[in-house]
Amino acid sequence: MTPASNRAQNGPEWRGRLFDIIFETDTHRGARAFDLVLIVIILASVIVVMLDSVETIAASHHQLLYVLEWIFTVLFTIEYAARLASVQSKRRYALSFFGIIDLLAIIPTYLSLLLPGSEYLAIIRVLRVLRVFRVLKLVRYLGEARILARAMAASRYRIIVFLITVVTMVVVLGSFMYLIEGEDAGFTSIPAAVYWAVVTLTTVGFGDITPNTAVGQFLASVIMLMGYGMIAVPTGIVSVELAYAAHAAGQTGGAPGTRDNVCTACRTGGHDSDARFCKKCGGTVIAIAPEG
Amino acid sequence: MTPASNRAQNGPEWRGRLFDIIFETDTHRGARAFDLVLIVIILASVIVVMLDSVETIAASHHQLLYVLEWIFTVLFTIEYAARLASVQSKRRYALSFFGIIDLLAIIPTYLSLLLPGSEYLAIIRVLRVLRVFRVLKLVRYLGEARILARAMAASRYRIIVFLITVVTMVVVLGSFMYLIEGEDAGFTSIPAAVYWAVVTLTTVGFGDITPNTAVGQFLASVIMLMGYGMIAVPTGIVSVELAYAAHAAGQTGGAPGTRDNVCTACRTGGHDSDARFCKKCGGTVIAIAPEG
Amino acid sequence: MTPASNRAQNGPEWRGRLFDIIFETDTHRGARAFDLVLIVIILASVIVVMLDSVETIAASHHQLLYVLEWIFTVLFTIEYAARLASVQSKRRYALSFFGIIDLLAIIPTYLSLLLPGSEYLAIIRVLRVLRVFRVLKLVRYLGEARILARAMAASRYRIIVFLITVVTMVVVLGSFMYLIEGEDAGFTSIPAAVYWAVVTLTTVGFGDITPNTAVGQFLASVIMLMGYGMIAVPTGIVSVELAYAAHAAGQTGGAPGTRDNVCTACRTGGHDSDARFCKKCGGTVIAIAPEG
Amino acid sequence: MTPASNRAQNGPEWRGRLFDIIFETDTHRGARAFDLVLIVIILASVIVVMLDSVETIAASHHQLLYVLEWIFTVLFTIEYAARLASVQSKRRYALSFFGIIDLLAIIPTYLSLLLPGSEYLAIIRVLRVLRVFRVLKLVRYLGEARILARAMAASRYRIIVFLITVVTMVVVLGSFMYLIEGEDAGFTSIPAAVYWAVVTLTTVGFGDITPNTAVGQFLASVIMLMGYGMIAVPTGIVSVELAYAAHAAGQTGGAPGTRDNVCTACRTGGHDSDARFCKKCGGTVIAIAPEG
Repeated sequence: MTPASNRAQNGPEWRGRLFDIIFETDTHRGARAFDLVLIVIILASVIVVMLDSVETIAASHHQLLYVLEWIFTVLFTIEYAARLASVQSKRRYALSFFGIIDLLAIIPTYLSLLLPGSEYLAIIRVLRVLRVFRVLKLVRYLGEARILARAMAASRYRIIVFLITVVTMVVVLGSFMYLIEGEDAGFTSIPAAVYWAVVTLTTVGFGDITPNTAVGQFLASVIMLMGYGMIAVPTGIVSVELAYAAHAAGQTGGAPGTRDNVCTACRTGGHDSDARFCKKCGGTVIAIAPEG
Repeated sequence: MTPASNRAQNGPEWRGRLFDIIFETDTHRGARAFDLVLIVIILASVIVVMLDSVETIAASHHQLLYVLEWIFTVLFTIEYAARLASVQSKRRYALSFFGIIDLLAIIPTYLSLLLPGSEYLAIIRVLRVLRVFRVLKLVRYLGEARILARAMAASRYRIIVFLITVVTMVVVLGSFMYLIEGEDAGFTSIPAAVYWAVVTLTTVGFGDITPNTAVGQFLASVIMLMGYGMIAVPTGIVSVELAYAAHAAGQTGGAPGTRDNVCTACRTGGHDSDARFCKKCGGTVIAIAPEG
Repeated sequence: MTPASNRAQNGPEWRGRLFDIIFETDTHRGARAFDLVLIVIILASVIVVMLDSVETIAASHHQLLYVLEWIFTVLFTIEYAARLASVQSKRRYALSFFGIIDLLAIIPTYLSLLLPGSEYLAIIRVLRVLRVFRVLKLVRYLGEARILARAMAASRYRIIVFLITVVTMVVVLGSFMYLIEGEDAGFTSIPAAVYWAVVTLTTVGFGDITPNTAVGQFLASVIMLMGYGMIAVPTGIVSVELAYAAHAAGQTGGAPGTRDNVCTACRTGGHDSDARFCKKCGGTVIAIAPEG
Repeated sequence: MTPASNRAQNGPEWRGRLFDIIFETDTHRGARAFDLVLIVIILASVIVVMLDSVETIAASHHQLLYVLEWIFTVLFTIEYAARLASVQSKRRYALSFFGIIDLLAIIPTYLSLLLPGSEYLAIIRVLRVLRVFRVLKLVRYLGEARILARAMAASRYRIIVFLITVVTMVVVLGSFMYLIEGEDAGFTSIPAAVYWAVVTLTTVGFGDITPNTAVGQFLASVIMLMGYGMIAVPTGIVSVELAYAAHAAGQTGGAPGTRDNVCTACRTGGHDSDARFCKKCGGTVIAIAPEG
């Protein structure tokens, strides 16, 4: 979970120090500063990529943006090399979520030399901003994120069933609309009609394609009401899964072995079964099953 | 529930083997392969129907698509015949959900010989894809689907009350908008205005019809806020019904006779009342009332 | 609650019989037929009003629709008179919900003689369709409707707080958009901008007015994300209130005096605290507080 | 919490009386009248600002509206001075939520003398309307508002995680759409494409920018389905937090020291653990943790 376990056990002593600065947050005083500076640079580079895509701005400042873009890319390249150098197992870092993102964040700019236009792919580096969680008390946010992820995982089968059903529906309904409405209303093909069905069922409703015939408008109304009501299903699923944790806290009374009442903020465990807020930091206390 | 019970008890021995291949999934080694190939062919045929509706593609490859379409149709016809031949009770299969879908999947192509344009109805065969559940561990997904269906069934009266109320509202509100806005704003008739009311209340908002007058925009704002708030009702209903199962698990402690804590993935029963994940497969454990 | 208590205690014997036919549903054999015929006539009259508003149809069949409209109106007038005649307390019926609707359903047509155009107000008679609940096992649907209404009532303060907050927000946010975007983008006045804010916050998004400036699009994005997240509030409120009933069933074990586990379908009471479905009709069993 | 504690302890006796009239609601008979008049004036002044922005109206009645605007501003200025004069600690009031709003409500009009156009900022005074809570039984609504606020606060970390994730997603997805669709479809720059992604993910769907290419429409469909499903997350989070209070009521049985079952309407405490409605006023009874 934490990259700490990847700290160099042997080798030159500088590797350990470098690792602490780059990967640690609290222990090493240089580490926090490094993280903060990194976040700022990432955001700056993302803004540069964005501005470069705005014609009016690019026209006047392209030169400047181009230079900045290369400066950021070089910095990120050095950082990536440093990360590789400082970790015990290169492979493990390179294949980790952030390891891949770090690499994807620098490739596009180099790629743009061969393949013009691909420099915009550098926007992917915005994903690196997720590192921000590490800066603002990692564990607190990861704790919450873990609960959300757990709820998602626990309801994955139900969500898959729901999605396959929805996709099947939009294909069938869209095709019927294609037969009913025909070309002139914008339903130029079944794929286009299916796209319209998605736009309608999800209650997005762009309005770039709309039914003209009475029958089409009636079927459209039915689709809308279905979408309006069906949104209840994923919501209900997630609510139930999220509810379970708090629920269990009351049920089991934190019986040893089954589950523990842990603070999602500071990770303090062993709270009373009816404890709502952490005694220490006031974070949300929630019952979670033991790791595994 | 499972079609297995429809296996031929007597008659030539090949019928049993055929049945195993077509209807079974796990027991017979040929069966899984058959299902996988079937899913692929179904998806391919759906894509063919879709592409055939795209003018630019149809113009250049109509001949190819037309041939493919007939190949698929013949294959499905043979399959349908094989299914009919292999089952004990023809009637029971023919009237089952998948039995009807299997038939509807082949009719349109033949119909298109008499009635041009109807070939697009073949898109209905996308419903056959629902067979995919049988391939990827049927019981796991059907287990979840059953819980969703159960929640829907349990809240059917509330949902009907909700829908009748909504329909009544859109008719009344739409008519008022018709009187307020009149022709030029696009509210050309009460049905059109009701259609607009549905578009608005469900928060779809195509924008093909929009109020121009101050009064109309005010009433529209009220309708939007109502729709924004009313979406809470179906969501609340479904959440509660879905919550009940997990809830009961904690309440009843799986007292014998009342309900059993079953894994929705592998169907293992008799879990502890506070068990969240299956001891065996880690699936979601949920309390369900005995069949019946 | 039930109108039965308004049956004539004295007076000519025909009043009692008339009352049974008009107001009863199950007891009197003539009553059910009367209700069914009534629903059909109501729906027919609503459709007539709707069709009459469709120019193409009105042009060709106005005469027919006009005659039908008057026939329905006369029938409803006679029915209204009969209801008034058959009840014990005229005042009590005339001021009841259905009493007012019944009157509003006939006024517009007469009014249209003096005030052309007002005949469309007759659409209000669609509300009479709510009588349908009485036909399809009244108590079942009213039981559910009562639970929904109870949940709404219990959370009325929270919903008012939510609505006042939302309205205040759209006024402020809309005004800022007016200052940022100005005339040409369609934000012609603060009221128009507030209307746009409602369209956006409720995620309806007609698209008749949209921001053009970068600042406007940024603020709009913030408003959309707020609306996307805030929809959670009413949903959460209603879910909790709806959940309480089922929740209490588990909590109190149907302790005498506190609450009773009643079937929302057939009203059978005294179910076990963990009973989910009615022993008799399979309806949803739910814990409700004693009347009062 | 209540401003009462800011009543002048010493100084001339008129300060105390003035304080009672301005800040109290129930105790002093003049106070209620003052609050009601104030709300009316605030609403009137907001309407004036709104009407003044409507060209057609401004053209004909600008003079009148201009005068009214200044009358209201002077009144509010006097009121603000009176509030400052009557309180014990000027600083504490000036920096309180309403203190700041009261000041912001008068600045724009004066500012408009130097900076034309800024007078519309006076719309901010609509926020003063929130005072209405104080008039209609303050405690009842603040009680509910406090519960909503508490639920929000308790789930703040989860909501932040959710928002950062959403923002990151729209930036990445928007950029891909920019690369896929390009200029002519309206995706003129990455910021514009990100704006479109927000419009789509939140299911607002203005339709001012829409994908034309097949690939773009496919990716758009995926984004819509994500947004349609992801709305479940904030809803689930808030539902759970809101549910907890009612939940705890049943769990803890109002054990002394842990939590108390308080009526959100009249604040009466010590209700039974299974009490749903207040014995005294019928308000919602809910379990809350002790202040602190």
